[in-house]
Amino acid sequence: MKPLKVAVLGCGSVGSQVVRLLDEQAGDLTARVGAPLELVGVAVRRLDAPREVKVPEGLLTTDAEELVTRADLVVEVIGGIEPARSLILRALDHGASVVTANKALLAADGPALYAAADLAARDLFYEAAVAGAIPILRPLRESLAGDRVTRVLGIVNGTTNFILDKMDTAGSGFAEALEEAQELGYAEADPTADVEGFDAAAKAAILASLAFHSRVTVDDVHREGISEVTAADVQSAREMGSVVKLLAIAELRGGEAGEAVAVRVHPAMIPRSHPLASVREAFNAVFVESEAAGELMFYGPGAGGSPTASAVLGDLVTVARNQLAGTRGPGESAYAERPVLPMGETVTRYHVAIDVDDRAGVLAAVANAFADQGVSIQTVKQEGRGLDAQLVVVSHSATDAQLAATVDQLRTMDAVREVTSVMRVEGGVE
Amino acid sequence: MKPLKVAVLGCGSVGSQVVRLLDEQAGDLTARVGAPLELVGVAVRRLDAPREVKVPEGLLTTDAEELVTRADLVVEVIGGIEPARSLILRALDHGASVVTANKALLAADGPALYAAADLAARDLFYEAAVAGAIPILRPLRESLAGDRVTRVLGIVNGTTNFILDKMDTAGSGFAEALEEAQELGYAEADPTADVEGFDAAAKAAILASLAFHSRVTVDDVHREGISEVTAADVQSAREMGSVVKLLAIAELRGGEAGEAVAVRVHPAMIPRSHPLASVREAFNAVFVESEAAGELMFYGPGAGGSPTASAVLGDLVTVARNQLAGTRGPGESAYAERPVLPMGETVTRYHVAIDVDDRAGVLAAVANAFADQGVSIQTVKQEGRGLDAQLVVVSHSATDAQLAATVDQLRTMDAVREVTSVMRVEGGVE
Ligand SMILES: NC(=O)c1ccc[n+]([C@@H]2O[C@H](COP(=O)([O-])OP(=O)(O)OC[C@H]3O[C@@H](n4cnc5c(N)ncnc54)[C@H](OP(=O)(O)O)[C@@H]3O)[C@@H](O)[C@H]2O)c1
Ligand SMILES: NC(=O)c1ccc[n+]([C@@H]2O[C@H](COP(=O)([O-])OP(=O)(O)OC[C@H]3O[C@@H](n4cnc5c(N)ncnc54)[C@H](OP(=O)(O)O)[C@@H]3O)[C@@H](O)[C@H]2O)c1
Repeated sequence: MKPLKVAVLGCGSVGSQVVRLLDEQAGDLTARVGAPLELVGVAVRRLDAPREVKVPEGLLTTDAEELVTRADLVVEVIGGIEPARSLILRALDHGASVVTANKALLAADGPALYAAADLAARDLFYEAAVAGAIPILRPLRESLAGDRVTRVLGIVNGTTNFILDKMDTAGSGFAEALEEAQELGYAEADPTADVEGFDAAAKAAILASLAFHSRVTVDDVHREGISEVTAADVQSAREMGSVVKLLAIAELRGGEAGEAVAVRVHPAMIPRSHPLASVREAFNAVFVESEAAGELMFYGPGAGGSPTASAVLGDLVTVARNQLAGTRGPGESAYAERPVLPMGETVTRYHVAIDVDDRAGVLAAVANAFADQGVSIQTVKQEGRGLDAQLVVVSHSATDAQLAATVDQLRTMDAVREVTSVMRVEGGVE
Repeated sequence: MKPLKVAVLGCGSVGSQVVRLLDEQAGDLTARVGAPLELVGVAVRRLDAPREVKVPEGLLTTDAEELVTRADLVVEVIGGIEPARSLILRALDHGASVVTANKALLAADGPALYAAADLAARDLFYEAAVAGAIPILRPLRESLAGDRVTRVLGIVNGTTNFILDKMDTAGSGFAEALEEAQELGYAEADPTADVEGFDAAAKAAILASLAFHSRVTVDDVHREGISEVTAADVQSAREMGSVVKLLAIAELRGGEAGEAVAVRVHPAMIPRSHPLASVREAFNAVFVESEAAGELMFYGPGAGGSPTASAVLGDLVTVARNQLAGTRGPGESAYAERPVLPMGETVTRYHVAIDVDDRAGVLAAVANAFADQGVSIQTVKQEGRGLDAQLVVVSHSATDAQLAATVDQLRTMDAVREVTSVMRVEGGVE
C-alpha cells in the first residue's frame, strides 16, 4: 500500500512526541490506517536547537511553506495565530488534511479555517486543542450527535486547577500557589494566558460551538481569571461544603427570542459532591449534561507533550483513513445559528460574604438590597464577632446583571463595612 | 434530500426511547446527518402491548424479517442471540447499516457479525452495548487509535455497583442490598445475569477486543460475581482505605511468547483515592490506561432507556452520514491477534483475611505459606483477640495460580482456623 506522507509543523513539547510516536507505533499505525504513515518533514524555527526526540536525518526544515505542499497529512503544532493559520490554509489548499492542537487559532478564527477545509473537501481535526488527551470533541461531535446537549462544565486549564487545588488543600494564598506551580513546571514564567483565563476561554468557545452547533468565538466568551481569588474565598467555599474551580461553562438558554448560548469562564464554587470537585492537581475534566444521556464526565491529563500527542495521533489515524477512503469526517456544524447571550443576561447564582455592623436591622437591610434587584435568597448565615458580623448570602438564580447590581448596592450601604468575597456558584441544587 | 429509511427492531426500554428521539429530534437529526431519517417500521413481539411511546399509525409490525429488507438503517434493540443475530445478518445482506445495543450477541459471536458487515461493506456500530450512554467504544476505537492502550478497568454493571455501594455506605449485607436494588428497579427479579457477572463479562470481551485489536469472546473472560461478597469483605476493604467494586478488567501483558490479553470480571478492592472508587449507585465508569495519554476516565449512566437511546442515536447519525457519503467507519480491528492468557497465568494481587490461633510462630507459618508459592507479601496486619487473632495479608503481584495455591495451602494449616476473606486488589501502588 502506498504510504501517506505526513508533515509535522513544530517540534516542541507536542511535536517532538508526535514524531516519537509516529516512529514507535509505526507498525500499529499502518495496521489501523491501512497504509504506512511516512514522516516527510518536520518544520521548526531553529535547525540547531536541542530536541527531545531524534528527528531522522534530513527531515528538519525551516521551510514550512514548502513542506506542506508535499504532504498528504499535516500536523500543525507550532501554536499561535501566524504563521500557523497561513500554513494550515496552504496545506488544505494543496489537498492535505490537517490535524492541529491550536486552540488559540481555532477560537479566534475557526469559521475561516472550516470554510477552507470545506472548499478543499479535506478534514480539519483538533481533538488536542481542548483538554489535551481527553477525548471530548469527538464524543460531543459524534457520540452525542443524536442527543441534545444542554450544558458543558469544564475544568480545562491544568495550571489554574493546580493553583486552586493547592489553595484548597494546603491553604496557600494565590501568590504562593502560583509560585509552586511555576517551580513544578505547571505554570509558565508569564502565567497570564492561564491565570487570567485566556486559555480556558479559547477552549470554552470551541466547546460551545460543537455542543450547540453554532459559531462561538473567543470574543463571545465572558472571561474572569483566578488572580483575585483569595484564601478567604477558598475558605468560604470550604465552609459551605464547596470548592473553588475555574470553570469553562457553555449553556443552552431558552429566551423570548428563542434559544441562545451562554458561554463564560470564571472561578466558581461547586459542591464537593459534584464529580468535578474531585479533579485534583493539573488534571482536566469536562462534565456534559444532555437531555437523553444525562450527566457524563470525561477525565484525564489536559496537557503535556505525550498526552497531547496521543490526541493528535488519534485524529491523524481518522483523517488518514478518510483520505484513503476518499471521504471526510463531519465538518463545521453551525446550522443552529444560536446567538450568544451577553453576560448580563446570563443566569447564575452568587455567593456573597460581607462584613457588617452587628446591630439590629442589618440583616433586613441586606435582604432588602437583594429584593430590590429582584434576587431571591437561598441561604443566609450570620456570624457575630463582637462589634461586627459576617453575613454569607447565597442567592437563587438570577441574571448576572441583577446579581452584580445587588453587590453594587451592598457596597453603598452604611451598615456594610466591606464586601469580602463575591463568587458565582455552579453545579448545585437550588 | 432523499430521506434515509430507519427500521427499529424492538420497542421496549431502549427501542421506545429511540422512537421518541427520532421524532423529537427530527429537525436536528436532519441537519446533522444531511438528510431526514424516516422511521419506516418498528418490530415487536406483541402488537397490542402497552408502549412507553406513541408509535405512528401503521408502523408497528411483528414481521421483523420483512421490515429489515426495506430499510437503509436498522436499529436492533431486541436483545439476546436469536432472532437478533439472523435479523442483523439479513439487514446487512440487504445493504442496510446496523446499530445495535446487544452486548450478549456481540460478545458471543462478534467476529461473524463483523465479517458480514465487511462483506456487505456496511457499518455495524454498537456504542450502547457497553456502559450505556457513556461514549467509550468510539474513544477506544478512534480517539486512542494512535496510542497504545495497556489496561481498561471498568465498572460496567450498574446493578452490582448499586449493591456494592449500599453494602459500603449503609453497611448492608448482600441479600439486603440486592432486595433494595430490586425494589428500586435497579435489579431484575432474576438478578443472575448482573449479579453473577455475565453482563459485565460480555462487556469486558467487547472492551478487550477494541482496546487490544484482538478477538476476545465472552468465553475468554474469567468471571466471578458478587453474590459471595460479604459485609466482612466490605468492612475489611474499608479498614485498608479501599472499597469493593465489581471490575471488568482487560490488560495487555508481556510474556515469553509475546504479548497477550488478560481479561476478567471479579470483585476487587480498590483504594478510595482511585477515580473509580467514587462511582456511586448505579453509575458506570471506565478507566483507561494508555502509554501516551496516561490515565483517562469516562463516567456516566450505564443503562436506562433514554441514556442508552442517546448512544444508539449517536451511532445512527454516524452510520447515516457514512451511507450518504458512500463510505463506512472502522470495521473490526483484530490485526494484533493477541492470545488470551488463562486466568492462572494472569498477574494480580490478593487480600487475605484469616482467623488464626494467637500463639507464637503462627505469623511465621503463614508467611512461609506465601513464600512456598513464591508470593511476596506487601503488608501484614495482626490483631489479637484473646485466644485467636486475625491476620490480614496483602500480597505483592503474583500469578493467580500462585495466589490461589497459597490460599489452598493456608486452608490446610493447623494454626489457621478459617480463611474469612479472599479478594483481589486492583488499582493500587505496590
Ligand atoms: N504543550 C501542551 O501541553 C499542549 C497541550 C494542548 C495543546 N497544545 C498546543 O499545541 C501547540 C504546540 O504547543 P507546544 O507546547 O508543543 O509548543 P512549543 O513547545 O513552544 O513548540 C513550538 C514549536 O513550533 C516551532 N515553531 C515556532 N515558530 C515556527 C515557525 N515560524 N515555523 C516553523 N516552526 C516554528 C518551534 O521551533 P523551535 O523548536 O525551533 O523553536 C517549536 O518546535 C500549541 O498550539 C499549543 O496550544 C499544547
Ligand atoms: N435497558 C437498558 O438499560 C439497556 C442498556 C444497554 C443496552 N441494552 C440492550 O438493549 C437491548 C434491548 O434492551 P431493552 O431493555 O430495551 O429490552 P426490552 O425492554 O425487553 O425490549 C425488547 C423489545 O424487543 C421486542 N422483541 C422481543 N422479541 C422479538 C422478536 N422476536 N421480534 C421482534 N421484536 C421482539 C419486544 O417486543 P414486545 O414489546 O412486543 O414484547 C420488546 O419491545 C438489549 O440488547 C439490551 O442488552 C439495554
